[in-house]
Amino acid sequence: MSQRLKFSVSYDGGAFAGWQSQLHRKTVQDELERAFQKIGGTHVRVHGAGRTDAGVHALAQVAHVDLPDRKMSGERWTNALNAVLPNTVRISKCLYVSEKFHARFSAKGKTYRYRIYRGKVVPPMLWRYVLHYPFPLDEDAMRAAAARFVGTHDFASFAASTGSEEDDKERSTEREIYSSELARSPDAEELVFTVRGRSFLRYMVRKMIGTLLDVGRGKLQPADIDRLYELREHANSGPPPRPQGLCMVCVEHEESFRISDQLNVR
Amino acid sequence: MSQRLKFSVSYDGGAFAGWQSQLHRKTVQDELERAFQKIGGTHVRVHGAGRTDAGVHALAQVAHVDLPDRKMSGERWTNALNAVLPNTVRISKCLYVSEKFHARFSAKGKTYRYRIYRGKVVPPMLWRYVLHYPFPLDEDAMRAAAARFVGTHDFASFAASTGSEEDDKERSTEREIYSSELARSPDAEELVFTVRGRSFLRYMVRKMIGTLLDVGRGKLQPADIDRLYELREHANSGPPPRPQGLCMVCVEHEESFRISDQLNVR
Repeated sequence: MSQRLKFSVSYDGGAFAGWQSQLHRKTVQDELERAFQKIGGTHVRVHGAGRTDAGVHALAQVAHVDLPDRKMSGERWTNALNAVLPNTVRISKCLYVSEKFHARFSAKGKTYRYRIYRGKVVPPMLWRYVLHYPFPLDEDAMRAAAARFVGTHDFASFAASTGSEEDDKERSTEREIYSSELARSPDAEELVFTVRGRSFLRYMVRKMIGTLLDVGRGKLQPADIDRLYELREHANSGPPPRPQGLCMVCVEHEESFRISDQLNVR
Repeated sequence: MSQRLKFSVSYDGGAFAGWQSQLHRKTVQDELERAFQKIGGTHVRVHGAGRTDAGVHALAQVAHVDLPDRKMSGERWTNALNAVLPNTVRISKCLYVSEKFHARFSAKGKTYRYRIYRGKVVPPMLWRYVLHYPFPLDEDAMRAAAARFVGTHDFASFAASTGSEEDDKERSTEREIYSSELARSPDAEELVFTVRGRSFLRYMVRKMIGTLLDVGRGKLQPADIDRLYELREHANSGPPPRPQGLCMVCVEHEESFRISDQLNVR
């Protein structure tokens, strides 16, 4: 019987040097592994669905660990982890899943959101979560460009030079985007980009936003997006804007992996 | 002709050791005085309507300075200050006012808000702005108690032992409260206390909240508020909860002080 525990994790990226473990830097993965060690007494490796960069936030990142036993229920793990983690990281929905489940490899979809503040002055309490861009933008052209991301394309022009976020060994830069939309927030002060896809290359969402900003400024036309797919050269897409505007909203997995969030009574 | 400049200032209190200048600590007043010095070349003293404590936020604190000249319009001051200040402090509505205006002494009203998060898990992005209290509370009793703050009362039981926030020399602890309400936020996850009054003693709003929490837990009854007015002993009211939940919402002044936000053409 698997002791694989799946959970959702939300964090304020401003408090961390990104998701992935680093020597002498505070990362989300390290905080989580330290919390599991503190509660369970043994070191376990935390596997996340996506390795978010320094400054990038998450509403519901998904991760898993393999525990040595099932002494604690999912609900008890949720409470225990939240009790020892810093308030900038919160856990929800701990539940035991099949060992066929893998947070990263069995993800069927991920949604990211990028917030651009269009007003003249950013309220101090919003500063950690937005890009400030108060200058003119052709938002209709940007919307038309955003729609061109939908479908399966070679996103090499939108990748970091260092390769894929998802798997450094994977060479293909082809990715499937399910939806890609740009909309004004309810108070109309923000331009919000929401993109949902099977998986993403490293820096891909921010390079998409950088390119949309170039379209908004008239440096590129919406049709240039198709040209960028053919060029396969990341220097031609827009530069990635500040990570603080980016948030991993959710990760989708098949429900069939679920076993139980109950305590295993042997 | 007065060179007194009035302005609104919004800040994220988490970034500062409070409003008032302190040696070797980052304070809002110091940041503002440094910004004026950088732009104008001379040191000016910033006078705020209220000296908020470390961790307390402001949406629209009001302050004034006396400038050596009127070379720059109010709008130019707004832009110049925002260009040099950290993003955790934002300026708006710079305008020249009569020298009879004083940010603190001519304030006619102040509004504070305190946010209590009632849900089980505080989203990491909210943590800096709320008190987390997920335990049972008799909110009806709290609402009844909050209503008893309205009117003119001796708030000595709700003061810090060190005296008044408003003026340390002022001995009276009588204060007038215009309105005092407790309501659920639109998403129902928060209990929000909003209080508007002529002025407040040091720690008074947080001592009010501490007392309301004691009422919610059944330690005190709403009628005990009246008893506290008579006791005049701050050890009997509830302890002040974390400052991060508190925000100065706005300050009211008479409009008649306004002269002009335009450049003075001599």
